Amino acid sequence: MTWASIDLNADLGEGFGRWRLTDDEQLLSVVTSANVACGFHAGDASTMRQVCAMAAERKVRIGAQVSYRDLAGFGRRSMDVPAAELAAETAYQIGALEVFARAAGSRVSYVKPHGALYNRVVHDEEQAEAVVEGIMLTGERLPVLGLPGSRLHTMAEKAGLPVVTEAFADRAYRVDGTLVPRGQEGAVVTDPGEVVERSVSMARFGVVTSLCGRPVGVRARSLCLHGDTPGAVGLARRVRSQLETSGVRVEAFV
Amino acid sequence: MTWASIDLNADLGEGFGRWRLTDDEQLLSVVTSANVACGFHAGDASTMRQVCAMAAERKVRIGAQVSYRDLAGFGRRSMDVPAAELAAETAYQIGALEVFARAAGSRVSYVKPHGALYNRVVHDEEQAEAVVEGIMLTGERLPVLGLPGSRLHTMAEKAGLPVVTEAFADRAYRVDGTLVPRGQEGAVVTDPGEVVERSVSMARFGVVTSLCGRPVGVRARSLCLHGDTPGAVGLARRVRSQLETSGVRVEAFV
Amino acid sequence: MTWASIDLNADLGEGFGRWRLTDDEQLLSVVTSANVACGFHAGDASTMRQVCAMAAERKVRIGAQVSYRDLAGFGRRSMDVPAAELAAETAYQIGALEVFARAAGSRVSYVKPHGALYNRVVHDEEQAEAVVEGIMLTGERLPVLGLPGSRLHTMAEKAGLPVVTEAFADRAYRVDGTLVPRGQEGAVVTDPGEVVERSVSMARFGVVTSLCGRPVGVRARSLCLHGDTPGAVGLARRVRSQLETSGVRVEAFV
Amino acid sequence: MTWASIDLNADLGEGFGRWRLTDDEQLLSVVTSANVACGFHAGDASTMRQVCAMAAERKVRIGAQVSYRDLAGFGRRSMDVPAAELAAETAYQIGALEVFARAAGSRVSYVKPHGALYNRVVHDEEQAEAVVEGIMLTGERLPVLGLPGSRLHTMAEKAGLPVVTEAFADRAYRVDGTLVPRGQEGAVVTDPGEVVERSVSMARFGVVTSLCGRPVGVRARSLCLHGDTPGAVGLARRVRSQLETSGVRVEAFV
Repeated sequence: MTWASIDLNADLGEGFGRWRLTDDEQLLSVVTSANVACGFHAGDASTMRQVCAMAAERKVRIGAQVSYRDLAGFGRRSMDVPAAELAAETAYQIGALEVFARAAGSRVSYVKPHGALYNRVVHDEEQAEAVVEGIMLTGERLPVLGLPGSRLHTMAEKAGLPVVTEAFADRAYRVDGTLVPRGQEGAVVTDPGEVVERSVSMARFGVVTSLCGRPVGVRARSLCLHGDTPGAVGLARRVRSQLETSGVRVEAFV
Repeated sequence: MTWASIDLNADLGEGFGRWRLTDDEQLLSVVTSANVACGFHAGDASTMRQVCAMAAERKVRIGAQVSYRDLAGFGRRSMDVPAAELAAETAYQIGALEVFARAAGSRVSYVKPHGALYNRVVHDEEQAEAVVEGIMLTGERLPVLGLPGSRLHTMAEKAGLPVVTEAFADRAYRVDGTLVPRGQEGAVVTDPGEVVERSVSMARFGVVTSLCGRPVGVRARSLCLHGDTPGAVGLARRVRSQLETSGVRVEAFV
Repeated sequence: MTWASIDLNADLGEGFGRWRLTDDEQLLSVVTSANVACGFHAGDASTMRQVCAMAAERKVRIGAQVSYRDLAGFGRRSMDVPAAELAAETAYQIGALEVFARAAGSRVSYVKPHGALYNRVVHDEEQAEAVVEGIMLTGERLPVLGLPGSRLHTMAEKAGLPVVTEAFADRAYRVDGTLVPRGQEGAVVTDPGEVVERSVSMARFGVVTSLCGRPVGVRARSLCLHGDTPGAVGLARRVRSQLETSGVRVEAFV
Repeated sequence: MTWASIDLNADLGEGFGRWRLTDDEQLLSVVTSANVACGFHAGDASTMRQVCAMAAERKVRIGAQVSYRDLAGFGRRSMDVPAAELAAETAYQIGALEVFARAAGSRVSYVKPHGALYNRVVHDEEQAEAVVEGIMLTGERLPVLGLPGSRLHTMAEKAGLPVVTEAFADRAYRVDGTLVPRGQEGAVVTDPGEVVERSVSMARFGVVTSLCGRPVGVRARSLCLHGDTPGAVGLARRVRSQLETSGVRVEAFV
């Protein structure tokens, strides 16, 4: 008997003021976990409030998508932020989001770094530790969503925080289980059918075909869906639908 | 028998990154309530954390000094922020500060608008209501520090929030109890001895001499001290010392 | 013989970092004057550079769309900025844009305030004067695009700057020639055919039908087209095409 | 006969809004070149205008102190800004400053990167090239002030821009002529007498004593003085006075 369960997460609320990026309402009908931008790379206070309200109504879990302070670069530029500042900025963002999650009858139930910070804490122990320290400041033992084997996860576990691993159905993997860096040929999987097929394979069997054609184990409790490209919502729906058809339970991680 | 008790509040943590404005450590040895900047007109996350830690250690009450989003103008420029945005931004700031207050073993225990927002909600009912709505979003019935008779206080009371009145020992009053507007001659009391004397008079008798020389009733539960001028800390100390010598109990409002 | 000539202007480059708002390339094939955002309400440096390059290539005139410093509010929130600051901020924005205009082989050839600042300088003499002072700081006698009868135009003329009047084909007018305020019923003309017809009427005869049904004179050297709504580019094309078919020369003001 | 001439430069206008950092007026009576902050790490438009006016009046040369966009970190955090963005942001800052320099009857006559960007372009060829590209966008062949041997200087020379070398009298040098990194023991020379003595030695003989005690050649056309520490202005005066007494001509580079 095959049994499997998977969480679907996506970045939401990534507009700012007059600007919008994702179709939050539609994405919230697909995902089980919403990574809500907290104002540092995107996400004004009104948007945060609205996204939290919509998420809570649909019983979608709310996570703090913490970032470098970088609106102009959308948090995609790696920054040498001193550890004490990064810890404080992480806590600041979570605290701000918590108000809106609570007001909506929910709460912040996990943390996921965004963009350049996400990539940096895979390897940078000092910044990984700072993010964990920021989470600890909140007094809540919030699960940390990230790449398996990342320094972020190592430091989170050391601090006693739960870790949740995630995988990307639209990204190519190397045979050692790491992601093929963006910019390299074949790094992004663009064929929708292939994305759907990989999602099911990862959710059911914990396996995906690597760039060189060999199967590679990718065990993840959550799949990250992207919402900021044309057709993103439709593809997300297809992924969820095919997962369910294949007998995979789509549900938030505990 | 004369009995009186007064709270002393001051704005703290009003630096940003490399810049500092007030001698927070010294001021915290004088005041009983610290209005902590929350990042919108001043106050980076590290500073907020440090000020909360120092305040908690000295058992000084922590308040959220909420502001328009205006670093360039230090929150001193009135802005036509739509009510929904202002409410959300108010909640955002309180939530961010709450993390650091809790981490220090304390909590945000009141709210005081800053600068142009402070002045605007004296008369602007829509913005006053928005600030109150923002406080209500936190789920805490936080006291609102402000001018007696302000729209902010009216709206706060309507929403069931406690209000705390404050007075300014270094500002001139009109005979009707309102402040002489800055920019008008004599608006600011600069003589230290006079500031001390007015503090005691307001705290003990609820009376101060108006600009035109007649006594005017100014009943306030809190006195606001300014910390951003040379000699500010020394003057604050003198005020506190003279209050205590005069038999006034200096203590935070409940 | 009927002769008429009209300039078409639109706001461009109103994205910021990751966010985009208008289809700049398409709009540049329609308009004769491009109001380029200068970084205060929108417009990062890369976008400014690109828009200037595209505009220069198409021989579209480049104007500085100066704004309050307000990314979060997209410059749509009126602000009490002191005159000296507003003058300096106006000059700063024009200077920054000038680099990219020059690099593209063109130059900044007019100034148009954006959003809340545009509306405010219709009536606020102090801010109108500050904007004019900011323009004077550049040392160039740049034409000022604005509403006929605005304080901005009065102050600009006083300072010896050329003024260029503009009209809005998609906005309702009162019989006295002023705009029906947004928010009031009928303030915005949404029917595309009507927008086209009004454009031609204003360009050829300087007349448009007021909200109450009577003709009103609206003499303008430039028509403002909006680019930030769905179908905006298509409508802009129709306006230009119908103007030309009707014998109106579409050309930049001198 | 000994003949020598040296330029003295310092960072100015590094406040923002309510905050001040340096005593610009006093420093301008000492230095011959003013590195004016352009709004990205510090420097609001009003301050830029004032500093340019004061500099022009004292015939002090105005330079653009370009930086990463990072007010919160004062431009001291290295950032992975893509080359095209960095080039455009460099040009943007120079253009903005140029307005105020021209308005004061002067002009921007050199460029010096600030903080983390300054350190990064010593080694990072891509960012060095981007800064140079940004300068080229202005259409002016502006001299580039920086460390001898830096990638910035290599790329500037390649592009045909003049380069100006600088040295630091209050920083320790290694025997190979590079700076002892901050954070390392002895990296900063704090004794005022020693700073003065090193200034004279570098200006007259192009030699300074390295950290290990051996003389090292440090040929620089400009000496950088720091203005953001207590006593900085007094020390700057002593340096200038002792240079002049020693027969060194203090004058801007050509």
